[in-house]
Amino acid sequence: MNITHALCTALFGLAACAGAAPAPERTTGDLGVIVERAVGAVQIVDVGARRPVAGVEGLGDLSHASVVFSRDMRYAYVFGRDGALSQVDLLTARLTRRVVQSGNSIGGAISQDGRFIAASNYTPGGVKIFDAATLALVADLPARGADAGAPNKSVGIVDLPGNRFASAFYETGDVWIIGRDDAGAWRVQAFEGVGRNPYDAGISPEGRYYLVGLFGEDGLDLFDTWHLDAGPRKVLAGYGKDDPKLPVYKMPHMEGWGNDGRYSYVPGVGRHEVLVVDRETWATVARVPVAGQPVFCVAAPDGRSVWVNFALPDNGTVQVLDTETNAVAATLTPGKAVLHLEFTPKSEAVWMSARDDDRVVVYDTETRRPVASFASRQPSGIFFTSRAHRIGM
Amino acid sequence: MNITHALCTALFGLAACAGAAPAPERTTGDLGVIVERAVGAVQIVDVGARRPVAGVEGLGDLSHASVVFSRDMRYAYVFGRDGALSQVDLLTARLTRRVVQSGNSIGGAISQDGRFIAASNYTPGGVKIFDAATLALVADLPARGADAGAPNKSVGIVDLPGNRFASAFYETGDVWIIGRDDAGAWRVQAFEGVGRNPYDAGISPEGRYYLVGLFGEDGLDLFDTWHLDAGPRKVLAGYGKDDPKLPVYKMPHMEGWGNDGRYSYVPGVGRHEVLVVDRETWATVARVPVAGQPVFCVAAPDGRSVWVNFALPDNGTVQVLDTETNAVAATLTPGKAVLHLEFTPKSEAVWMSARDDDRVVVYDTETRRPVASFASRQPSGIFFTSRAHRIGM
Repeated sequence: MNITHALCTALFGLAACAGAAPAPERTTGDLGVIVERAVGAVQIVDVGARRPVAGVEGLGDLSHASVVFSRDMRYAYVFGRDGALSQVDLLTARLTRRVVQSGNSIGGAISQDGRFIAASNYTPGGVKIFDAATLALVADLPARGADAGAPNKSVGIVDLPGNRFASAFYETGDVWIIGRDDAGAWRVQAFEGVGRNPYDAGISPEGRYYLVGLFGEDGLDLFDTWHLDAGPRKVLAGYGKDDPKLPVYKMPHMEGWGNDGRYSYVPGVGRHEVLVVDRETWATVARVPVAGQPVFCVAAPDGRSVWVNFALPDNGTVQVLDTETNAVAATLTPGKAVLHLEFTPKSEAVWMSARDDDRVVVYDTETRRPVASFASRQPSGIFFTSRAHRIGM
Repeated sequence: MNITHALCTALFGLAACAGAAPAPERTTGDLGVIVERAVGAVQIVDVGARRPVAGVEGLGDLSHASVVFSRDMRYAYVFGRDGALSQVDLLTARLTRRVVQSGNSIGGAISQDGRFIAASNYTPGGVKIFDAATLALVADLPARGADAGAPNKSVGIVDLPGNRFASAFYETGDVWIIGRDDAGAWRVQAFEGVGRNPYDAGISPEGRYYLVGLFGEDGLDLFDTWHLDAGPRKVLAGYGKDDPKLPVYKMPHMEGWGNDGRYSYVPGVGRHEVLVVDRETWATVARVPVAGQPVFCVAAPDGRSVWVNFALPDNGTVQVLDTETNAVAATLTPGKAVLHLEFTPKSEAVWMSARDDDRVVVYDTETRRPVASFASRQPSGIFFTSRAHRIGM
């Protein structure tokens, strides 16, 4: 019975095992995790079946949480607002490990080889690196000034090829490339004060271009990580100089900058427009007027469309941009307070979290009509395990 | 004990279960399948650990086999030379289903939604579509002429967005777009005789451009699947007209056309060169002289390099092209008769099958040095489960 129990707990469906019935067999390749921000829990979802299959509670403050996955898609690593890093076993639907790694955090990344987790710290500010299997701390890298008590928030942390990470820092405008030396010690290559108040950053799909969004100036900082010696380059400078400045209701996310072929779709900070940027010249080739202040601009994997959600008061609207015309092709109202969008990896569907409806809605990408929905407690981030195999995700 | 046994067989490691010890828990997100062509078997490999973990025998003639995966990464579908379609359970390492679907076949695809498997037939020629769960036949689509007994081999079959498939036909030069009508019946949109003797075809990463390699003429046929009404377009026509024609020792693979940003790397048929093609204009922007007749040109996911293997007598050589300079950056000799290359999804390593050494060798992508190897019986194709989430793979 011990063995049966052990095997039962090795799979999903503890309840099914209780009566000694065979546990359901399950793989994790088509699963996902939805953050239920109100209750410190995650739903584990079956992406193909479009429904939740399990839940895990006790993850703390998830009011602004993000998730990465182990390369074998067994574990989800949840970075919580309360500074906790939680390791959730998707096979058993259990919280397996949890460390409170800082006072406040929202982001993290997993290394190319899957061995290390890097977590952003807001308080005091810096990056901590953990062993992905045990969550043992392997490196503590305080931000400039943070060791003296000055806040310097780590933002926009991503993994880079070469088992490296990149992060920007809000207060000092520093950008770090973090990697290991030949002896295995973690080292920082720091670029100091490259822009005013980086608020988020993102990496292009192949892991080459690190683009840093700036709250304190019109423009972005670009790093070509194949040529770090060349240093940062200011791009899209003064993109909003002819427009009246609007109050910013919610910071957009660079994590979601849509990448389609040679073009990227970047939310304009505080503006009702999406900037279409040529990644070869870094010139703006189009400015698409949209329904509100964009938050996420997510490109469908099939490249035909970019889906955009918005800050208050337009957060019940989602717009679909046609990538051939760079025009709005559809305006949708999937629900109240749409916080996040996630495409299935082969592009047939897009999932959206409608926080104030307590629902997740699934749209067909081609027909742009809802095809499924289910209850979720104030859902925010949606993360599919297919991210495990993508650089910078 | 029945239940324990059922659970044991539900996981890997039957041997470990035999003594009633707990079975190893396993997920399939970081696994792969290597075709052992000599013995009709596949090795199941752990990609991160760089070693085989199980084997499955009894798959028939795998002398030219290919593999696709279910969206949950549980099942590998193996298309064998003898016309058999085998469903292998990666969780239990067992052959779960097998149908002999034609006299001769080498390729197949899985639909975007994961519900259907399409298999190429050589004899007599056509495409059959199967239910992915049961392998029940759901549609039999004979090629033009094949119903009257004339051979018309299906080549270059891939999945397209919209739950469609594309295939070309060697004898007639037809190209098909296969999809379902509103009633769910499978329908063919046929383009007849668009090129002489298509030998393989490939789809760009987002699933838009279907590029058909032609054995009977210098040039390729291009379909923009977003605009099928425009029909096919001849591209790279006469690319070899100034060169003496060499005997073709092995047909190159279009499945492996490397895609990096806006450029694709296409093997020149019967030539010692790789063509670099701009996917916006479809002009050749570079012709890279290489060590032999290229077979696969595979782009590293990090976009920095394209790795090329060669036909006899140069099949012990692999060359690495630098994508910034479009020049050969390294010439490697990984083993005898390198038949296939597969990158890890986040690009840190590339696996190569050295058939005549009975070994699989793993190279670090950045250092270009071997980091692991293991025995395999005449290995050919290498397929990682990360393909489950990629269009056209």
